[in-house]
Amino acid sequence: MRDVFHEELESITADHLKMTALVRDAIESATKALLNADLQLAEKVIADDLAVDTIQHNLDERTINIMARQQPVASDLRRLVSSLRISADLERMGDLAHHIAKLARMRFPNKAVPDEVVETIAEMGFAASRIVDKMAVVLEFHDTNRALEIDADDDEMDKLQRKLISTILGPDWKHSVESAVDMAFASRYYERFSDHAVSIAQRVYYTETGEFAPKS
Amino acid sequence: MRDVFHEELESITADHLKMTALVRDAIESATKALLNADLQLAEKVIADDLAVDTIQHNLDERTINIMARQQPVASDLRRLVSSLRISADLERMGDLAHHIAKLARMRFPNKAVPDEVVETIAEMGFAASRIVDKMAVVLEFHDTNRALEIDADDDEMDKLQRKLISTILGPDWKHSVESAVDMAFASRYYERFSDHAVSIAQRVYYTETGEFAPKS
Repeated sequence: MRDVFHEELESITADHLKMTALVRDAIESATKALLNADLQLAEKVIADDLAVDTIQHNLDERTINIMARQQPVASDLRRLVSSLRISADLERMGDLAHHIAKLARMRFPNKAVPDEVVETIAEMGFAASRIVDKMAVVLEFHDTNRALEIDADDDEMDKLQRKLISTILGPDWKHSVESAVDMAFASRYYERFSDHAVSIAQRVYYTETGEFAPKS
Repeated sequence: MRDVFHEELESITADHLKMTALVRDAIESATKALLNADLQLAEKVIADDLAVDTIQHNLDERTINIMARQQPVASDLRRLVSSLRISADLERMGDLAHHIAKLARMRFPNKAVPDEVVETIAEMGFAASRIVDKMAVVLEFHDTNRALEIDADDDEMDKLQRKLISTILGPDWKHSVESAVDMAFASRYYERFSDHAVSIAQRVYYTETGEFAPKS
């Protein structure tokens, strides 16, 4: 009975990793689509978000069925509840990549990103991909050290967002208000994307150690 | 045994309603603080958000303990999982009211809201309060008709957001980029606040009927 249960836990992790891979592709492609005004790529990210939602839907059904059949207590039950929350975070990360792609599509054939902030947006994209890669390791290997590192990576993301906001609000901003608002929203999407990765890392940390992750 | 379980379910709903009342106060006060540059009120909303987080934390612990003790299956288990998701949505609604209050605090002693958009922001605040009131009825009485109405209320919120965005991006906007970005973020917070209410209503609908709520 216990073996079946542990196999089931592993299959949940496998689905989390599938979602993670999709979300990683999505944020990377959405960033490219945004920077290069690539409509085709933007459309692909928007369409592919359905795959993340579908995995989440089926996974959550399966997780609830495992709860009903196995009647787990204590740490096993917590692990399943945590799994449901992790899949919700991943689904939301997919949505945020989708929002970034929609910004690219909305401004096509123009580039949504003015030259002055290309570098910062590119850095936010890289930071997001890096955080997702680390999150995949945390999920796959229950790596609590990496889980703690993600908090610092998120600080870096927050710093990039502040830099972007100060550029668009600075005296040298010569682009439209529309462009400033687009970039403000884009930075918010990256920042929230990163927050959800932090939240996933904290859930894994808590499940593994029984303690809340210390704040960086 | 079943009676204890149903009492426990009722006590979960009671906590959801407590959170709802706090979140309702928060969004109403945050809107006032934003419109009137009321620093004291903004600080109160920011400080009070902790109360919502604390209820959620304790409630989730209790809900997981009920799962472990009662070993519910089928619809009772689904109801508990749904409760966890509802408390997460409520906690997030509290955060969003908190974000609006922080906008007010950031611009104090200036008013964050330019005259041209005072009416729209006020309407978004009213719409948010109305949606929370309806959501409270849905939660308390498992009212599936009201649950469906919330989707239409959310459409109204989306319309207000589009109106606000088109004002700040319109040719007559004579205020700063900073002000436009503030208002864009504010509108996003109201819109997300409303989305979480929709999500709660849909969860109640699903728990009560076993079917997904039709889209408006």
